[in-house]
Amino acid sequence: MAEKITPRSEDYAQWYVDLCLQAELADYSPVKGCMVIRPNGYGIWEKIQKGLDRRIKATGHVNAYFPLFIPEEFLKREKEHVEGFAPECAVVTHGGGKLLEQPLVVRPTSETIIYAMFSKWVKSYRDLPLLMNQWANVVRWEMRTRLFLRTTEFLWQEGHTAHATHEEGEAEALKMLDVYADFAETEMALPVLRGVKSQNEKFAGALRTYAIEAMMQDGKALQAGTSHDLGDNFARAFDVKFQDEKGEWRYAWQTSWGVSTRLIGALIMAHSDDDGVVMPPRLAAVQVVIVPIYKTEDQRRDVVAAAERIAGQLRAADLDVVVDAREGQTPGFKYHHWELRGVPLRLEIGPRDLAANQVFSARRDTKEKAALSLDGIVDHVRVRLDLIQKNLYDRAKLLRDERTREIDSYEEFKTALDAGGFFRAHWCGDGKCESTIKEETKATIRVIERDTPAVSGKCLRCDNPSERRVVFARSY
Amino acid sequence: MAEKITPRSEDYAQWYVDLCLQAELADYSPVKGCMVIRPNGYGIWEKIQKGLDRRIKATGHVNAYFPLFIPEEFLKREKEHVEGFAPECAVVTHGGGKLLEQPLVVRPTSETIIYAMFSKWVKSYRDLPLLMNQWANVVRWEMRTRLFLRTTEFLWQEGHTAHATHEEGEAEALKMLDVYADFAETEMALPVLRGVKSQNEKFAGALRTYAIEAMMQDGKALQAGTSHDLGDNFARAFDVKFQDEKGEWRYAWQTSWGVSTRLIGALIMAHSDDDGVVMPPRLAAVQVVIVPIYKTEDQRRDVVAAAERIAGQLRAADLDVVVDAREGQTPGFKYHHWELRGVPLRLEIGPRDLAANQVFSARRDTKEKAALSLDGIVDHVRVRLDLIQKNLYDRAKLLRDERTREIDSYEEFKTALDAGGFFRAHWCGDGKCESTIKEETKATIRVIERDTPAVSGKCLRCDNPSERRVVFARSY
Repeated sequence: MAEKITPRSEDYAQWYVDLCLQAELADYSPVKGCMVIRPNGYGIWEKIQKGLDRRIKATGHVNAYFPLFIPEEFLKREKEHVEGFAPECAVVTHGGGKLLEQPLVVRPTSETIIYAMFSKWVKSYRDLPLLMNQWANVVRWEMRTRLFLRTTEFLWQEGHTAHATHEEGEAEALKMLDVYADFAETEMALPVLRGVKSQNEKFAGALRTYAIEAMMQDGKALQAGTSHDLGDNFARAFDVKFQDEKGEWRYAWQTSWGVSTRLIGALIMAHSDDDGVVMPPRLAAVQVVIVPIYKTEDQRRDVVAAAERIAGQLRAADLDVVVDAREGQTPGFKYHHWELRGVPLRLEIGPRDLAANQVFSARRDTKEKAALSLDGIVDHVRVRLDLIQKNLYDRAKLLRDERTREIDSYEEFKTALDAGGFFRAHWCGDGKCESTIKEETKATIRVIERDTPAVSGKCLRCDNPSERRVVFARSY
Repeated sequence: MAEKITPRSEDYAQWYVDLCLQAELADYSPVKGCMVIRPNGYGIWEKIQKGLDRRIKATGHVNAYFPLFIPEEFLKREKEHVEGFAPECAVVTHGGGKLLEQPLVVRPTSETIIYAMFSKWVKSYRDLPLLMNQWANVVRWEMRTRLFLRTTEFLWQEGHTAHATHEEGEAEALKMLDVYADFAETEMALPVLRGVKSQNEKFAGALRTYAIEAMMQDGKALQAGTSHDLGDNFARAFDVKFQDEKGEWRYAWQTSWGVSTRLIGALIMAHSDDDGVVMPPRLAAVQVVIVPIYKTEDQRRDVVAAAERIAGQLRAADLDVVVDAREGQTPGFKYHHWELRGVPLRLEIGPRDLAANQVFSARRDTKEKAALSLDGIVDHVRVRLDLIQKNLYDRAKLLRDERTREIDSYEEFKTALDAGGFFRAHWCGDGKCESTIKEETKATIRVIERDTPAVSGKCLRCDNPSERRVVFARSY
């Protein structure tokens, strides 16, 4: 509790780890690369799930659950897919004390097993579109892991759909990209760029991968969600076919899209400060903490009762509230405790406040303090939470905009990258040139933005003609 | 759709499979022993999760997430535990293309990995009680599987707690047993017996296992939830220790408890009939279906609009409603479709109903039909759903009570078992005698009920003295 948080300016990576551990969001586990999501962190995930699940269902999708294990042979049916994922797989070779005839892969993603089922369920155009989603754990063997951002096992949702036409599939992929972007901006207070990935960076097996990209406080990019137009690649590999209105058999057109517990890492990295975690109110597991302040036993009884009364009013308005009435801890200790954990709004109530029919409020984001009348307290709290939500978004957007610029000199680009930021630069469109840039600078094309105006220029590195600028950055 | 459901009387096991597949609750997957939970089945699981999660949190527990993989060595630390679970484990031997130095077991249950973390987090009596829960998938290599009831992979929640005293741990185990019983009876409409398991039947590594047991329509028992008093067995194996108020180090006392997707199987088996699934309204994914009936296009427009209006009113009252306005399907086809899937209440609305300001309702459980006025429709629907919920419980309880009896003759017991039922019989308390009964009759002691009066008698099989009757049955 009394551990010190490394300041961002000193060591950004260590600052992040300090927050995760000290705020008890996560912990390292005895299994290499796997983390434990502690209750404070899991509470954020539950809010993320709730907000996303609502949006996924509102767009017509239904939840289902498919097996954790995938026959190794399935993975091999789509050539690019197996090349991308086979090196990252965990493989079950024994079950029930016996060597398995065919090894089972622990799902790194579920296209193959799900489309094997789709192939059984889809027969006619009347069965389309098939719009499914699954909340699940997946495993990708990672060499270098980082709490929340990159772990061997992680939790996610993966949507999988099948459509009668490519046009419809493409529209679905774009619709879900917009759902993700709306979720990021509205709930996570995180402005994002949206667009298509380069072929080098697309999902293994997709025709096209769309993504949303956010900027962290160190200026690095973080991919916050992807949506894939799979074309008919998997339909051909898994025989997902339907009879159209004329009775002809056709391959279905598919999409998949997902976001994961990495979003928790994005929230922490985007909003927090040197005093601890800062969480947007809409996703904070605890939105308001009330700290009763007292000296005598009589005072304690009165202020704790008042605190509980206020908590009851706030809870009735669907807010998540904790009354920290622990005895034997000072108010200062409690302030620090909840500040570290990122609770957006603190209310303090002492005998004098009670007499004055008010509470004292402290915002986590700006540290601003203000007295709030107990008359209409629910509205006062709501307004403040909305202000905090908005401020976090504005702050993140300002940071991003200030650190996004056009660049045309490769030499300048190389040095500018060290300070972080998004760089809009011309690119010739050649994957080899892109790879060279990555090798030389560790920067990748994060996204080719939708609706970027075509403005011709010369490639940042090779001077070949370019039709539009793309966004380069180093990334998590 | 037009497939025939095998009647219960003809082949109960096949009837159950027919329901699962035809109502599209589940499907077989290409992975041996693993099932796919289709949207209709997963919708029930989401309702179960919601109802249980609320109860788990209301009793002070918080959710967290622990790794899927467990180092093989961990499992071995608790002797009984490894004997019970090692033969059922799936083992990961390769990761990222390399042979692992230490094999990883896919969790069959998470005591070992969770308590390794508890040992890190628990230092002082102030850290206790530690009250956690996890929603997760687990894998147990099963030889003979059955949709929902016994599958290699299944979904569940597992609660894990640590306490300062054995008394407190024991009280926790019993509290969660009561939570499960309340959930089963209130939400699942499933009367249950609650009590302790015999030592033969307890969880591998527990001191005592408590369970709730329900009766299916064929008279067999189904274990619907278990709660384990783990004593300090795992605390000693994983070094979960705390300093008490006097500064002395003590081992913590622990509990674990869980229910799984097998509950979906219990719901189907307990309530359904030869026409399809019957679901209690509180857990039905779709609670009300509205079927518009029309001939002309004008009629269609009016009744569909009315159906949507009614659906809107019901949804505003938090009910899950589908309007089946599919064109090209007859009303009869739709009735059958939703009857098969177990929707508790159907509303039919045609032009004449609309003119009379009413709808026609049909209960799934009793098939009773009645006209309902559109004035106060929400209340009329609510009342009917409550009646259905109550009727399902009463019906299941009647069935159970009629088929529960005391028995003292072992010969009679052997033949009576074939007709199914719960048998209250005297038992000497010897595990070997219990095993012989199991071998000779396939019946096991389901539960030693709490608060069974001590009435002395002679053991059903060996005539040795017995202190109380216990409940025998064949089971799933």
